[in-house]
Amino acid sequence: MRATLKDVAKRAGVSRSAVSRTFTNGASVSIKMRERVEKAAKELDYRPNFLASSLTTRRTKMIGLVSNNFHNPIFLEVFDLFTKGLQERGLRPLLVNLTKEVEAQESIDMLHQYSVDGVVIASSTLPPSFAKAFRDAGFPIVHSFGRHTSSPEVHVVGIDNVECGRIAARELIKRGYKNVGFLGGPKSATSTQDRFKGFEEELKKSPEVNLSCTYAGAYSFDAGRAEMLQLLERQYCEAYFCADDVLSIGALSAIQDAGLKIPVDIGIIGLNDMEMAGWENIALTTIRQPVAQIIDASIDLMIAMLEEPDHFPEARLFPCQTIERKTLRPIKA
Amino acid sequence: MRATLKDVAKRAGVSRSAVSRTFTNGASVSIKMRERVEKAAKELDYRPNFLASSLTTRRTKMIGLVSNNFHNPIFLEVFDLFTKGLQERGLRPLLVNLTKEVEAQESIDMLHQYSVDGVVIASSTLPPSFAKAFRDAGFPIVHSFGRHTSSPEVHVVGIDNVECGRIAARELIKRGYKNVGFLGGPKSATSTQDRFKGFEEELKKSPEVNLSCTYAGAYSFDAGRAEMLQLLERQYCEAYFCADDVLSIGALSAIQDAGLKIPVDIGIIGLNDMEMAGWENIALTTIRQPVAQIIDASIDLMIAMLEEPDHFPEARLFPCQTIERKTLRPIKA
Repeated sequence: MRATLKDVAKRAGVSRSAVSRTFTNGASVSIKMRERVEKAAKELDYRPNFLASSLTTRRTKMIGLVSNNFHNPIFLEVFDLFTKGLQERGLRPLLVNLTKEVEAQESIDMLHQYSVDGVVIASSTLPPSFAKAFRDAGFPIVHSFGRHTSSPEVHVVGIDNVECGRIAARELIKRGYKNVGFLGGPKSATSTQDRFKGFEEELKKSPEVNLSCTYAGAYSFDAGRAEMLQLLERQYCEAYFCADDVLSIGALSAIQDAGLKIPVDIGIIGLNDMEMAGWENIALTTIRQPVAQIIDASIDLMIAMLEEPDHFPEARLFPCQTIERKTLRPIKA
Repeated sequence: MRATLKDVAKRAGVSRSAVSRTFTNGASVSIKMRERVEKAAKELDYRPNFLASSLTTRRTKMIGLVSNNFHNPIFLEVFDLFTKGLQERGLRPLLVNLTKEVEAQESIDMLHQYSVDGVVIASSTLPPSFAKAFRDAGFPIVHSFGRHTSSPEVHVVGIDNVECGRIAARELIKRGYKNVGFLGGPKSATSTQDRFKGFEEELKKSPEVNLSCTYAGAYSFDAGRAEMLQLLERQYCEAYFCADDVLSIGALSAIQDAGLKIPVDIGIIGLNDMEMAGWENIALTTIRQPVAQIIDASIDLMIAMLEEPDHFPEARLFPCQTIERKTLRPIKA
């Protein structure tokens, strides 16, 4: 059985409050008292319990990390960077899997029970209402990969998805594609809506280009493949902007199975630049989302809010760039 | 500010202990008292705080989930299944990223500070000494994907890696390969050691078969690709057992880049059957590790230990089977 704060107080012959103050950063305690407490603590192999002290400090140093898509490999990088970044700052991630949830309330109750200091929502598919519900429940919130607005209600860190749509359109136009398609993720995902918006807007500047549009049920390999198999049975375009890398890879597999050549018969541009996009047997041309910067900024904003809860909501957006590999034909001279 | 247990006690005009007992499963409290407390709790929108009650119950319902390889996509499935499985049982995963750590002590201190109820180590590369160090620090431990021994010191759930090596050898022999190679993960990983052991043992039964052996620095795409690029510069085998799928995919990419055909020029068999192995543009022939069963069993064992801490350490091993796709030549008639 581990020694408790009470045991240390008894051994040192001091009050429990004195022990507590000794182990609280910045709390007032005399040098003599500190020495006495530290000696007793050492003898008993006592380690302060964050959770016990959280009852006084109201800080657990735990951050709820909420995600809802464990089938998109980009989240492996996201989890890696978040857990490392939080650990380096003395915080800990409590992982919440919303895969099956349709409402925020159950998670809110759980996060209250664990008294997390704040919540990072890492998702481009959860509707903005989730972030607001968490905020209304009293949690400091950062929505990573969320949609920014001109008057954000919570901190949003991510990319300008509308601009990404424009980038994709320009890449296809530069290469002389005339019949192009948008293969989106879930129609309800703000990331898909915004990427389509920018894509369509930019293509309208080139009236000779035709645009068609279709949506996959999820940001997943299976959904991208299924959607492309259907497109191949009907009439397909010369090139597609797939709203995400894992969708793109699903689409590529369907195209290859049909005996068509990439990029000669069909071109594909994705979005994310997750690790697998760079695998030489995939070699996806894609728009890079700067995941590490997004996560660093998300953690910085969370810490700013923990220090000053009334921090005004910000949107921090990072620029994206095209990474040229082998799934679009070369730029026309 | 959220209502506390003290607020509820005051409003109901009862002791704090009575409120605590009302919200503790199985604690004794009269019907009349319970009604009084529940009424006050409802009026104040009070929700019990797991962490506060943990000081009495000594249970936080948090499980440390320790991992050290966020570059192997298999862990996306592992995290998904663990978080869902723990949530369904009212437990929560506190994610610990050991990517950079070489010693267990820092994590042990942290897990003590958070008073986790138990620790699941999900890794086939952390040495068994890590699991023992966590156990010696007083945590109930389950080592998932660990090495079993005839007298396990902690619960181990996973596969018989030696047997997997034998399965791989038999698959290559059945197909008439004469010069075969083992492309392992880190030489220090017990999974790589055991897979090689079984592979070598079984091949010795066929003296006409030559075996060569090499190791990659990590279970990662980059490590598998780098190792295969080196093999291709020297003398390469007809077929390889790569100790893991992500290594296999790295090796495949190097082979394709060299202009060699799979499986005509080189055959590959992997291990895991992670989602990407089934992607049609990869189509890896591999040995399936039943991840969902391993995680279910790991959670069951953890719960058994929470209920009865002296639970005798067990090894639960699940059988593996070959999943035939397109990276080995057909079986000789």
